[in-house]
Amino acid sequence: MLKVSVVGVTGYAGEVLIDLLLGHPQVRITDLSSRSIVKPKKISEIYPQFGGRLDLLCAPLDFKRIAASSDLVFLALPHTVSLQIVPKLLKAKKKVIDLSADYRLKNVKVYKDFYGARHTDKRNLKYSVYGLPELYRNKIKSAKLLANPGCYPTGAILALAPLAALNKIDPESVIIDAKSGVTGAGRKPADGLQFCEVNEDFRAYKVNVHQHSPEINQVLSRLAVKKLKVTFVPHLLPLNRGILQTIYVNKAQSAKRKAQNIVELYKKFYKNEPFVRIKPQGQFPRLKDVVGTNYCDIGIQDFGSRIIIISAIDNLLKGASGQAVQNMNIMYKFPETMGLI
Amino acid sequence: MLKVSVVGVTGYAGEVLIDLLLGHPQVRITDLSSRSIVKPKKISEIYPQFGGRLDLLCAPLDFKRIAASSDLVFLALPHTVSLQIVPKLLKAKKKVIDLSADYRLKNVKVYKDFYGARHTDKRNLKYSVYGLPELYRNKIKSAKLLANPGCYPTGAILALAPLAALNKIDPESVIIDAKSGVTGAGRKPADGLQFCEVNEDFRAYKVNVHQHSPEINQVLSRLAVKKLKVTFVPHLLPLNRGILQTIYVNKAQSAKRKAQNIVELYKKFYKNEPFVRIKPQGQFPRLKDVVGTNYCDIGIQDFGSRIIIISAIDNLLKGASGQAVQNMNIMYKFPETMGLI
Amino acid sequence: MLKVSVVGVTGYAGEVLIDLLLGHPQVRITDLSSRSIVKPKKISEIYPQFGGRLDLLCAPLDFKRIAASSDLVFLALPHTVSLQIVPKLLKAKKKVIDLSADYRLKNVKVYKDFYGARHTDKRNLKYSVYGLPELYRNKIKSAKLLANPGCYPTGAILALAPLAALNKIDPESVIIDAKSGVTGAGRKPADGLQFCEVNEDFRAYKVNVHQHSPEINQVLSRLAVKKLKVTFVPHLLPLNRGILQTIYVNKAQSAKRKAQNIVELYKKFYKNEPFVRIKPQGQFPRLKDVVGTNYCDIGIQDFGSRIIIISAIDNLLKGASGQAVQNMNIMYKFPETMGLI
Amino acid sequence: MLKVSVVGVTGYAGEVLIDLLLGHPQVRITDLSSRSIVKPKKISEIYPQFGGRLDLLCAPLDFKRIAASSDLVFLALPHTVSLQIVPKLLKAKKKVIDLSADYRLKNVKVYKDFYGARHTDKRNLKYSVYGLPELYRNKIKSAKLLANPGCYPTGAILALAPLAALNKIDPESVIIDAKSGVTGAGRKPADGLQFCEVNEDFRAYKVNVHQHSPEINQVLSRLAVKKLKVTFVPHLLPLNRGILQTIYVNKAQSAKRKAQNIVELYKKFYKNEPFVRIKPQGQFPRLKDVVGTNYCDIGIQDFGSRIIIISAIDNLLKGASGQAVQNMNIMYKFPETMGLI
Repeated sequence: MLKVSVVGVTGYAGEVLIDLLLGHPQVRITDLSSRSIVKPKKISEIYPQFGGRLDLLCAPLDFKRIAASSDLVFLALPHTVSLQIVPKLLKAKKKVIDLSADYRLKNVKVYKDFYGARHTDKRNLKYSVYGLPELYRNKIKSAKLLANPGCYPTGAILALAPLAALNKIDPESVIIDAKSGVTGAGRKPADGLQFCEVNEDFRAYKVNVHQHSPEINQVLSRLAVKKLKVTFVPHLLPLNRGILQTIYVNKAQSAKRKAQNIVELYKKFYKNEPFVRIKPQGQFPRLKDVVGTNYCDIGIQDFGSRIIIISAIDNLLKGASGQAVQNMNIMYKFPETMGLI
Repeated sequence: MLKVSVVGVTGYAGEVLIDLLLGHPQVRITDLSSRSIVKPKKISEIYPQFGGRLDLLCAPLDFKRIAASSDLVFLALPHTVSLQIVPKLLKAKKKVIDLSADYRLKNVKVYKDFYGARHTDKRNLKYSVYGLPELYRNKIKSAKLLANPGCYPTGAILALAPLAALNKIDPESVIIDAKSGVTGAGRKPADGLQFCEVNEDFRAYKVNVHQHSPEINQVLSRLAVKKLKVTFVPHLLPLNRGILQTIYVNKAQSAKRKAQNIVELYKKFYKNEPFVRIKPQGQFPRLKDVVGTNYCDIGIQDFGSRIIIISAIDNLLKGASGQAVQNMNIMYKFPETMGLI
Repeated sequence: MLKVSVVGVTGYAGEVLIDLLLGHPQVRITDLSSRSIVKPKKISEIYPQFGGRLDLLCAPLDFKRIAASSDLVFLALPHTVSLQIVPKLLKAKKKVIDLSADYRLKNVKVYKDFYGARHTDKRNLKYSVYGLPELYRNKIKSAKLLANPGCYPTGAILALAPLAALNKIDPESVIIDAKSGVTGAGRKPADGLQFCEVNEDFRAYKVNVHQHSPEINQVLSRLAVKKLKVTFVPHLLPLNRGILQTIYVNKAQSAKRKAQNIVELYKKFYKNEPFVRIKPQGQFPRLKDVVGTNYCDIGIQDFGSRIIIISAIDNLLKGASGQAVQNMNIMYKFPETMGLI
Repeated sequence: MLKVSVVGVTGYAGEVLIDLLLGHPQVRITDLSSRSIVKPKKISEIYPQFGGRLDLLCAPLDFKRIAASSDLVFLALPHTVSLQIVPKLLKAKKKVIDLSADYRLKNVKVYKDFYGARHTDKRNLKYSVYGLPELYRNKIKSAKLLANPGCYPTGAILALAPLAALNKIDPESVIIDAKSGVTGAGRKPADGLQFCEVNEDFRAYKVNVHQHSPEINQVLSRLAVKKLKVTFVPHLLPLNRGILQTIYVNKAQSAKRKAQNIVELYKKFYKNEPFVRIKPQGQFPRLKDVVGTNYCDIGIQDFGSRIIIISAIDNLLKGASGQAVQNMNIMYKFPETMGLI
């Protein structure tokens, strides 16, 4: 049994991660911690839903205790906090799956621009592996520090990867109109996220300046081997879980000339992927079909010079904790879908 | 034109009050203020929905400015804050409609038990009028300090008043199972009121210890001329506005003997009331029919020894700001429904 | 007092229309009817919220009775049904405000393609006036048959009109990502609109084939004096009321050259409009600010070669019944905001 | 591997049942059928969420095919339909878990009064076992025809069983104020269950005449060995899943005399139950903690002469399909929590 610990259990990602790890036949949770905990507290007092299932304390974050008790550490911490603990964990020969953004962006200047903080661990940043299994499975197998992708980037990149990799899109034309449930914003109290401020409302936020844009650009540009800069507008849906992204691209000149069945192209690109499902021609995904699962559903339609792609994921599963477990499965040679289907 | 001011505009009651007063043909809003405002700010910056309708500043709370500019002052402040400003306003010969609980409970010991603070203005408390027009219209006409009823008490008392006044209920048998939308909890950020903590959830809170119980008991006991103590359990509904209360009472011994059409009894009791609607036999109200209105809808059915009564109101209208305007109409001899239908 | 009747009261638009007309000081509702009513029924039995406010029967649709009792007839009927009654009403010298799509599209072939029915009243179609006051106020003044705009087109056209009229956009680049509350789909029971099929879900529908696309194209092409064909993808939001549309356009070559303050340009374009509000630079509208009002809020931002515009309306007010009343006000020389603010 | 089939897969209970059975290590789904299916259809076309997980056809209901392929048959059919198929299945020596109400009420007159149909299978009714494991585990072990409890009765009976069994309640005093999510009403389109008719609304229905009352009375009366008749008022919550019931009882005279820790009494009563969790003194359950699980959470508080009990379950799990799997586990000697935790 693999010994794992979760740091940062009071957020939604931490909560879902515990639930998944509890159901995983090859792991044992050995430590739960949180920065906001002052003295140890039963996890079932924090989350009554774990009553009867898990009898473990949640303790203050203590590097030594965590390192002593576990082989693999999941970090579900706010951005910039991981930077302080990752170097120590790696030094202690622990493997780390980091759910924050701290080790995703390879360019520290871009990191600073979007997260407002200087990157203090360039050494480990160099070796971090971006944990999107559909694109980087081989690297993930031997990763020591895994940067688990952001929720929006997961859905957006999977939706665009086939076209980007085959150079079929005009790199200036990509528009991503994203809509996310409220768990995407985290659990801490905020004026704008009170029930009555979100319920029966709908709004865009961080219009074209969201911190996930550079992550999308970084991965797609690498795939396309040319600079790609998306227009990205996220919106807040009055519901708990799920991200649906409606994506508009113009075909590259070369792609306009020859007709091609785009749906078949996607099916082929993802034919061995256990967690990507391509909708039949003329159908598009909805949140209901993916919420509660680790799937990414994708629908595509060719409208002549423009292609519309819609992808849907559960932001806390394929967009966070589910993908983290999928990555763990790959890193430890467990069946990739173990504990997830 | 009556000059009115609203103190405490950043809460939901204040917001709805401004909206109602804007549509009232006999009043002019002369001052808007809030304790949380540091320097004057356009009201349309706080509430974009008032853009194009109201071009007024919201200023810090300043007793003198308010007294100088208005004849009537609405206080939409948290409990205990009104105690500090009411004496000054009354001294300056202003009339006050207080939406807080500070001048509702005549017994200061009970006030302290339920609101956790000593009552510091017993002198004015003695003269405050409880603003439930259906029971106290005459007193309201000449009120100088009006204590606007709580949201739960409004729906509960209107549902029980006919039976209490006619002494038809066993005073120990009253059970009020109340359900409220989230605006009832006010606007300030709180962990338990974040969108994802309320959406797709339902829970009871303050089980049989809610501060509105003594208010209900005070009014019903006075009506029944005997001590009445209700069991009161409020619950939080995942919706913005509305309170529905399901009430169970056993008949008094005397009432059991003679058959009587309870629906007709209610219709008669409320026959001249513009804002109480009694449902036909066998029908019960729903929130949808009252939200956005100042009505209280009531359904009653006689099940032998037990009677079930269901009442529904909009907690921000008949349960707060709508009733405040109704009270103003009565105090100033405007038609009672003016600005409300 | 203007005598008005509403045909088709059992839908959401009919319901809201009654509410608005009841609050309008210059009209009297003289007749309510519905095709689904077999024998006359009190309107307060259909809609309990009108209890105490309106004591009128809702009767089966009877052309003669309606014509005899009213000067102006509002038709809130499903598409193709208006075609049968409009000719008769016009012949009887009644004015008509039609909320259906039957008299909006001037090209009957396009009508057939999108609504699946042959247009049987080309004669009157020729004279119908498209009721978007911000663009066609003068024609509306003398309209006898007014085609009230669709909900999506209202928000989309108002968002794009300034750029289209000034020829600042690449006509092939317009992408409208639209999101609507569920009242937009009408009231009739449908599998896909049951509560549990919509709640906690989000999905696109009629991707780029929605019947409102040609309406948007018709109006914008006329404005731009060149053919404009939008990509239009509507989505279903899990909420009752409101439409928010996020619109992406590339600038026309000519517009790229000279810098211009787009927000100011919009403010100027709409400076006399009582129901269009332009957000300050860097701000975007949300549903909450317009739901329950007749406003269209618009936010715009210039991102270099691409402009993003977001508009928000209440689909049942500015997107249907509110706009119908606004049009009535213009047709009968009432103040344009009467009964609406 | 146990071969199981599900009849009636198009309802919510059927859908959830498939999901649970797919995750159960000891069963294999061999047949899926529905009365509303005319020709066989892939289950993933009906429920896209099963895409990639289950590649099985859903076929029209055919008794012979079902009997031939399976050892155990789950019936998730509307009331009265089970009566037609159960006798045949039992004759063919198949075991049956019936999720409908057809074999729950032992008194056929009461069945007729509440379900409006004559009971046509009294012979098998006599042998049916009421599948509430916490009360009837021993009988369930050898059941051939298991009547799976109703959703409301499950939560209500578990909340009241300790007090009823120990004769601590006044049998005329029990009031159950129940609130259910919308999946409880089934999936078929109905006017009153359209999204906009439920969202932002709350209402009572079938006030004190709901068909689940006699089921609750039957079980509790048997436990208390005296006639018990509850007052039962269900309400419709604007959310998908979950039932919370707030229950008020007066103590029996005998129970008033001696003080007793009620929470401890409940903990003792349920101490070996894997799916009942008793809240600590002063705490009450909420839906969030049980939705998605097979738990029933119960909070109790003693208020002198009156006791308040609140129970919460997921209506589709402990209230239907989860409990059906729990019953299967008991019938086939699998660990009781298998596939459920």
